[in-house]
Amino acid sequence: MKNIVRTLLAAALLLSGLSLYAQPQAGDNQRLTPQVMARLFPAGVVSPEYNADGSVTFRCQAPQAKKVSLDCQMLPAETPMTPGENGVWSITVTPGKPDIYPYAFVVDGTKIADPNNALIFPNEGFKYSLADVRGAEPSVQDIQDVPHGKVSYRFYHSNTCGIDRVLTVYTPAGYDPAGSEKLPVLYLIHGMTDTYETWFKVGHMNNILDNLIAKGAAKRMIVVMPYANPYPEMIRQGKAQMYNAMDTDLVSKEILNDVKPFIEANYKVKTDAASRAVAGFSLGGRQALACGLGNPKDFKWVCAMAPAIFGEEYKANFQNGVYAPVNSLNKNLKLLWLGTGTSDFLIEASRSLDGFLTENGVKHTFYTPDGGHTWMNCRDYLARIVQLLFK
Amino acid sequence: MKNIVRTLLAAALLLSGLSLYAQPQAGDNQRLTPQVMARLFPAGVVSPEYNADGSVTFRCQAPQAKKVSLDCQMLPAETPMTPGENGVWSITVTPGKPDIYPYAFVVDGTKIADPNNALIFPNEGFKYSLADVRGAEPSVQDIQDVPHGKVSYRFYHSNTCGIDRVLTVYTPAGYDPAGSEKLPVLYLIHGMTDTYETWFKVGHMNNILDNLIAKGAAKRMIVVMPYANPYPEMIRQGKAQMYNAMDTDLVSKEILNDVKPFIEANYKVKTDAASRAVAGFSLGGRQALACGLGNPKDFKWVCAMAPAIFGEEYKANFQNGVYAPVNSLNKNLKLLWLGTGTSDFLIEASRSLDGFLTENGVKHTFYTPDGGHTWMNCRDYLARIVQLLFK
Repeated sequence: MKNIVRTLLAAALLLSGLSLYAQPQAGDNQRLTPQVMARLFPAGVVSPEYNADGSVTFRCQAPQAKKVSLDCQMLPAETPMTPGENGVWSITVTPGKPDIYPYAFVVDGTKIADPNNALIFPNEGFKYSLADVRGAEPSVQDIQDVPHGKVSYRFYHSNTCGIDRVLTVYTPAGYDPAGSEKLPVLYLIHGMTDTYETWFKVGHMNNILDNLIAKGAAKRMIVVMPYANPYPEMIRQGKAQMYNAMDTDLVSKEILNDVKPFIEANYKVKTDAASRAVAGFSLGGRQALACGLGNPKDFKWVCAMAPAIFGEEYKANFQNGVYAPVNSLNKNLKLLWLGTGTSDFLIEASRSLDGFLTENGVKHTFYTPDGGHTWMNCRDYLARIVQLLFK
Repeated sequence: MKNIVRTLLAAALLLSGLSLYAQPQAGDNQRLTPQVMARLFPAGVVSPEYNADGSVTFRCQAPQAKKVSLDCQMLPAETPMTPGENGVWSITVTPGKPDIYPYAFVVDGTKIADPNNALIFPNEGFKYSLADVRGAEPSVQDIQDVPHGKVSYRFYHSNTCGIDRVLTVYTPAGYDPAGSEKLPVLYLIHGMTDTYETWFKVGHMNNILDNLIAKGAAKRMIVVMPYANPYPEMIRQGKAQMYNAMDTDLVSKEILNDVKPFIEANYKVKTDAASRAVAGFSLGGRQALACGLGNPKDFKWVCAMAPAIFGEEYKANFQNGVYAPVNSLNKNLKLLWLGTGTSDFLIEASRSLDGFLTENGVKHTFYTPDGGHTWMNCRDYLARIVQLLFK
């Protein structure tokens, strides 16, 4: 019996993320029942807990902390949590609307992802968790009772970067590599410090596509999510000396010379420019403009979501060949889509570009909803874009 | 110019994970060059940095911290880091051998994943980062110049659990759903508080399979990685009242009645018991024994890696029907594999089971390398197992 207890305690200690409130009792024996096991290995602190009234309770176990706050995009500012039993701090919040909200705890000034939440915001520069708040009716980003596509992690060698790389690919339900159906392709690019996983894990792009395809609102398409920051691995492998966070040239080259050929060799896709779109958020929006407007022979659909463009640099880009000439766009493009929230810190540059395009008679869409530079806005942009593409 | 600077500062502040050492200078203008941008948006603190001599430098920016330590499985104990410029604490460590090591920083007692490392250990109860240390020659878990399989995230409805679920599936390079080749299937289960992503992201199971298949050491196979903890989502959706961390019965039922049919309907696979294996680590090892030994009509290959079995409960399991009778195993199984490190806190139970199997004349393999209850050991177990399966 002693050995069992020692083993169980060792196991419990090993699982350092779990809180060990329970202790073995005299009645515990070698025939361990689920009930005994559940008491010996309790679930960790439950966080976030989604309450029936639509509120969410966040909990953080920090017995020695002097102050713990919640940093969450469903709140206007960092908000103090309340200490309770067993050193567990908590706060209950009701979001303005059901959505997926990034959050972190601030423990005596140190920001941490929620240890008890497996949903992580994939990022190179911070670690946030995700609160996936659902409403009474499922929204476009929620899994619904429709046929589901899949998201695959693919590995390829990039000649442009000189390294092995990874990307993710969404294929819709019923996609058949041996069938006669050829699909158009959307290249979808993440923001600065995001990764090739962010549109999937935070953007729920697979649910958005599944739901809109199922109701006939979006065309069937393949979505390719490259990793637009090759530098850390290039530097590690001696293929680059310095990090260049804004190297849209390199990324465009990689998309055209490595990613596109890989996709077109491995998927049943259409290969004309009218069947290729490029879209992106933030730095990925800057990238989408550079890659799309710079290569009209390859992309006829270009969508920039809150693009990280600054001042009037676009004017120079239209003149110096970064973008095709402004008077060629109407002829070459099927869609030029620009969307930025009115509270987005990048709204002025988007407004300036919109004005310039209008002055020059370029057909385009400019969407300016409420909201800031957030993934809540991002999912809305994507849901709108995919209903326009390839039609 | 003022607007540009304000915009850039806003952008820089937004990217709160990046450290903003640089400030805009008078020479910066609307035609932002990559050089200017790189200075305005520098990469975050570089961590981990893999040095040419095989050492690794970890860095953590915590300007207000009194103490920062490294908690890393390449070190015997938590080790203090040294404060430096800009509040960046650092430590350089040379691991005993190249491998993938989980680590976290401990900032004034609070454990955090490395904010500047996108590689995260998928887990429900803690957040660790991964240091992916490679040697001069690639090891079995590293990406090599061989054809690559893919890992797909699949979504399905579980009748057993009453909820929508997700799992990951590895298909080898050249897998052709329309071809004549039918593949055997390994069901591979994660440990307690791990997720359906842990074997992929921490276990590098795709590289291990790619490399061993390429050199003919492993048979071509499909690997299915279910999510063996359905409880949090079941509780959220009112399908369960209480969390049961050790509910191998439910998980076996789900694998047999939901996962297996989903795989066999969606993949070109063999459907006889001799073409099905079940394996798992820790709690997943307990699960593999329950699912495999309990269902000899479904699985002829059963592999338990450091299984979370306790005392002599296995004796009762053989008697009460949780496992098939011990005297039926030689007839029904093609492989019974048990492996546990000599420093693993679970080694005694494995030794006891090994002794019992030997006493009862059950053919089996018992592998006891050095090492503890770690994913470094786990990858070694998997690489050994897949070379035995389906032969």
